[in-house]
Amino acid sequence: MATGAATATAVQQWRALLAGALESNAHLNYSSYFQLATISVNGRPANRTVVFRGFQEGSDNILINTDRRTKKVEEITHNPYGEICWYFTESWEQFRINGRIDIIDCSTRDLAKLQQREEAWFASSLNSRLQSLRPFPRLPVLEEPSEDYQLDPSTGPVDSFCLLVFGPEQVDYVNLKTNVRFLFTSSHSSDQSTNVWKFEKVNP
Amino acid sequence: MATGAATATAVQQWRALLAGALESNAHLNYSSYFQLATISVNGRPANRTVVFRGFQEGSDNILINTDRRTKKVEEITHNPYGEICWYFTESWEQFRINGRIDIIDCSTRDLAKLQQREEAWFASSLNSRLQSLRPFPRLPVLEEPSEDYQLDPSTGPVDSFCLLVFGPEQVDYVNLKTNVRFLFTSSHSSDQSTNVWKFEKVNP
Repeated sequence: MATGAATATAVQQWRALLAGALESNAHLNYSSYFQLATISVNGRPANRTVVFRGFQEGSDNILINTDRRTKKVEEITHNPYGEICWYFTESWEQFRINGRIDIIDCSTRDLAKLQQREEAWFASSLNSRLQSLRPFPRLPVLEEPSEDYQLDPSTGPVDSFCLLVFGPEQVDYVNLKTNVRFLFTSSHSSDQSTNVWKFEKVNP
Repeated sequence: MATGAATATAVQQWRALLAGALESNAHLNYSSYFQLATISVNGRPANRTVVFRGFQEGSDNILINTDRRTKKVEEITHNPYGEICWYFTESWEQFRINGRIDIIDCSTRDLAKLQQREEAWFASSLNSRLQSLRPFPRLPVLEEPSEDYQLDPSTGPVDSFCLLVFGPEQVDYVNLKTNVRFLFTSSHSSDQSTNVWKFEKVNP
């Protein structure tokens, strides 16, 4: 395993490493936060903190909730590529995850995707859902916001609620305690139905 | 200050906010880490954790040490724009700093810049300097690294040592405890000698 490329076996290695990092950093509430880089409409990099909402069932896709009115949604519409940088402060592990982002919002027509968006909505806390009712992000503050937004817990996703589905294509893992670094790269299987991951041990 | 744009006065407001965040998070050794997004040669976003090495004397420029052989240096040579995302886990403050990056390495001819690089080299720990002697980053591991790199403390910067000078042009600040967000934008003064910062309070 130390040299050359090797096909990852049954357990996808980077998922196992990530599960380990999430477990060893679980006592830190911010361990589910990571930085998502995208490309602005003007061609410059953009970068912000978002929250990990788990994996899409049966896949490696990472779920992120956001507000459709934020710049990142416009950016991803324009250029669907992103890179996650996820640094775990307790275990000194970094995951750089490069991939393509799919936007699921109120204009999506695919019923299965709309159902995923609805599930993501109800899986988030009521407090988190209330974020979708706030004034348009990044516009000048015209009035002090009133804090009395109301939302019935049974109400489905509001128009501004948006689900991002991040499909990893490459994962660059480094552990700064052990000084070990792996590069994981995915390719489609010959029948295109699944991702096949290969990895290589590289110099940190 | 609540509405419209206002010129920042004597103390640059975002520098004051950042100084406050650094102070209130100083007990966390990782509070000097942030994520730097750049654009890869293939046009996709790239994102990684780097360490804040202070401000360049007499300016708002942020200093970052790196290895000339890393991909980020190639990327910045190709496209000099970057965005820093700096999240403070204790105070719940985020600084998104967009700007242009200057590379100072062994091929730089400007003597004043070379002196800055030398100062950055000697300002970093001996252990940190030893990083510049490690095998070429991201290449396959051909042999287990020997841990006996030696470096005389009086030796100047080795060829692989590189200083990045990040010149902020826009700062997007949000405080998730107080729900306050400011956008700071710089423009050159009429005689081009200094940056003039304006800011605006916007919806988080």
